[in-house]
Amino acid sequence: MLEELKKAVFEANLELPKRHLVTYTWGNVSGIDRASGLFVIKPSGVDYETMTADDMVVMDLDGNRVEGKYKPSSDTPTHIELYKRYPEIGGVVHTHSPEATAWAQAGRSIPLYGTTHADYFFGEIPCARSLTEEEINGEYEKNTGLVIIETFDSKDMNPMYTPGVLCTNHGVFTWGKDAAEAVHNAVVMEEVAKMATRTELINPNVKPAPDCIRDKHFFRKHGENAYYGQN
Amino acid sequence: MLEELKKAVFEANLELPKRHLVTYTWGNVSGIDRASGLFVIKPSGVDYETMTADDMVVMDLDGNRVEGKYKPSSDTPTHIELYKRYPEIGGVVHTHSPEATAWAQAGRSIPLYGTTHADYFFGEIPCARSLTEEEINGEYEKNTGLVIIETFDSKDMNPMYTPGVLCTNHGVFTWGKDAAEAVHNAVVMEEVAKMATRTELINPNVKPAPDCIRDKHFFRKHGENAYYGQN
Amino acid sequence: MLEELKKAVFEANLELPKRHLVTYTWGNVSGIDRASGLFVIKPSGVDYETMTADDMVVMDLDGNRVEGKYKPSSDTPTHIELYKRYPEIGGVVHTHSPEATAWAQAGRSIPLYGTTHADYFFGEIPCARSLTEEEINGEYEKNTGLVIIETFDSKDMNPMYTPGVLCTNHGVFTWGKDAAEAVHNAVVMEEVAKMATRTELINPNVKPAPDCIRDKHFFRKHGENAYYGQN
Amino acid sequence: MLEELKKAVFEANLELPKRHLVTYTWGNVSGIDRASGLFVIKPSGVDYETMTADDMVVMDLDGNRVEGKYKPSSDTPTHIELYKRYPEIGGVVHTHSPEATAWAQAGRSIPLYGTTHADYFFGEIPCARSLTEEEINGEYEKNTGLVIIETFDSKDMNPMYTPGVLCTNHGVFTWGKDAAEAVHNAVVMEEVAKMATRTELINPNVKPAPDCIRDKHFFRKHGENAYYGQN
Repeated sequence: MLEELKKAVFEANLELPKRHLVTYTWGNVSGIDRASGLFVIKPSGVDYETMTADDMVVMDLDGNRVEGKYKPSSDTPTHIELYKRYPEIGGVVHTHSPEATAWAQAGRSIPLYGTTHADYFFGEIPCARSLTEEEINGEYEKNTGLVIIETFDSKDMNPMYTPGVLCTNHGVFTWGKDAAEAVHNAVVMEEVAKMATRTELINPNVKPAPDCIRDKHFFRKHGENAYYGQN
Repeated sequence: MLEELKKAVFEANLELPKRHLVTYTWGNVSGIDRASGLFVIKPSGVDYETMTADDMVVMDLDGNRVEGKYKPSSDTPTHIELYKRYPEIGGVVHTHSPEATAWAQAGRSIPLYGTTHADYFFGEIPCARSLTEEEINGEYEKNTGLVIIETFDSKDMNPMYTPGVLCTNHGVFTWGKDAAEAVHNAVVMEEVAKMATRTELINPNVKPAPDCIRDKHFFRKHGENAYYGQN
Repeated sequence: MLEELKKAVFEANLELPKRHLVTYTWGNVSGIDRASGLFVIKPSGVDYETMTADDMVVMDLDGNRVEGKYKPSSDTPTHIELYKRYPEIGGVVHTHSPEATAWAQAGRSIPLYGTTHADYFFGEIPCARSLTEEEINGEYEKNTGLVIIETFDSKDMNPMYTPGVLCTNHGVFTWGKDAAEAVHNAVVMEEVAKMATRTELINPNVKPAPDCIRDKHFFRKHGENAYYGQN
Repeated sequence: MLEELKKAVFEANLELPKRHLVTYTWGNVSGIDRASGLFVIKPSGVDYETMTADDMVVMDLDGNRVEGKYKPSSDTPTHIELYKRYPEIGGVVHTHSPEATAWAQAGRSIPLYGTTHADYFFGEIPCARSLTEEEINGEYEKNTGLVIIETFDSKDMNPMYTPGVLCTNHGVFTWGKDAAEAVHNAVVMEEVAKMATRTELINPNVKPAPDCIRDKHFFRKHGENAYYGQN
């Protein structure tokens, strides 16, 4: 079932090592079929080099495995919370990509310092708060999703305008209209994080770019007035 | 038309990902035929991996598409301003290469710290000022070109002695006698930027190199007394 | 003799350059056969590109060469001390991988800043003290092993919970249940070191992650309640 | 003539881009035949990708081209001064490798922070002083060699114990018993420079390693009591 989606999710997963976002098995991608309410996700701890499209796991949004011989990624409950809360999301990615994860470990949101960032993320990339001990010792992965949602709710942020987040002391989640776009956004966040670290080293007093730069570049690529690319 | 130039511009574009200057489609190269006043540029948002020489777009300096099935790069008006103002330029490149873009995001010119820099850039690589809100919301890409020219005019800089610039909060433009040399200068600027960042980390009190170093190395490679290479 | 172990140790050694952990011959991997008390180790100073499984050297725990035409790695006495003191160890690795070695040269333990670290190392990665002049001028490589053991003893650390160490002014040792796992841990330590350096640059006041994060992630992957991967 | 040496020097030159020490043509390697007093060096500004062993240039120590269709590297007079002053040197390398060049641009010698450094360089890697305006405007490349020699003389350093140097605002020279060893030392210096920069970021108050570490590691690999490798 969902053979095309399995193939797409499989290929999106392979992009992670190819783009140097993961070491060993440290990452996972999922994609959802909104018609059936089922999503496809990488199996837990399986090696990217030997994995096949058939190894992908089909899940429902209640966390039941519908098809597949493997256990799904241990981060599956985080994916579920994001899919349930944001119907416009079609794919989710988790990585520990090093440049962005360093910001997560530092507990800082990535300021918008330039157009590379603004082309994809409308404003700072937020860093979600640490989970409490209760949240960690309870349903940890589900609570990770809930804290991401809390972050976006509390800042009144649109997840399609800011398709990614840092989790304090942990790593990165990104998303998009499908699995491939979610991976694309993970690649961009890593590059943006790398540039931001260097930007602050070069000028410790740097300020974020003005809002007019953010607006210009984001809407040059997104929305009805976009003029970048070949519509 | 302009088949050779299309091929040269196509190949110069492919150098960008090969030399690790661009992620996805974040960059573009153009080259001009001064006899006809037409230039060839990368199409907007088209993938480097599938792009062919035939996909290149032929434009005139008034911004009209003369040939090609695709829309040209969204940065085309910047290229046009540079070609119109500097008749000695035969190729233009735009990138978000990370080490140089970090300097642009930091809003700092790259000081001339050594001979690697001086072999190609006669003095600091300037960082053009931020555009005003009016300039951004007006003809943004054209105004980007005008602010680059303003920078060179105000500092009385020779664009063939300093074949590149940083744009605050944005990225890099370089140029040269043709598309290939413009790409060459983009590669050099990225390397120079990387070294400059590390130089300041190693010695926060470092001063730029003396002018005699700049003069020696620049004119060892450029002008009538050059003696580097095989004339 | 021990042909399978030789092959496994040989392949584990080849992972070091493949994973960018060693330059030239700066590293070595060994693996032990506990039944016979013999271990297999890389020969000293032999090039990874031409080395074969047959070049591996078989040693006993008294430091006698049992088989092999080459001298064993000069770090062999360090491996021996670790094998003798920690019967649960099946493989040992030594590298000068640059990001982790920078921490060793800085004389600092790597704080646990996030889940990437906690997935593999239960708490900080300790930096063993400098050897005294007497220890250096005596049985240097053996004393290196003894100082590692002293570090773990003095901090009451479990080497299977913290499968690696930094040696001040020197480099990295890691270990695991076999040679492959020891290399895996060396790759992880390099990645963790890289992230930790960047974390402190981004936030000089950063604090280590709370213990509940450490416990959650370490035991998600290790021990009887682990639920990461396919049992 | 000197066909074997040409081949060896050609192959040593190709190691520079392969080991990521040079961008474009920014580097050169030479090797000398002490019997004839002739040396072989890379031609100036010739592309590594198309260069052949036959393109190597044969020179004498008075700076006369003895064989070859190309002009020799513009840095040839520096090589000559080193060969004339140090008869034990058989090969010389010049690069602008970025991590080491950042130290040269910063005008700082690289402190000996650990055993990676001590395995090859017996103490700090010195940074030669800036050339005066007269030295630059005179026989620049020859004077570069003389200032390197002045540095070693003034510090009473043995060039075979410290087989490389930084030149302020410029780059790196290394040497060795032949061209291959000179390249090997250039690779090591780049790695050592990278680690040293990170070491100081991690611990701004770090001190150089004690002399007993330096002595132990250097003489473990060099001299009559060496025991690293397969004699």
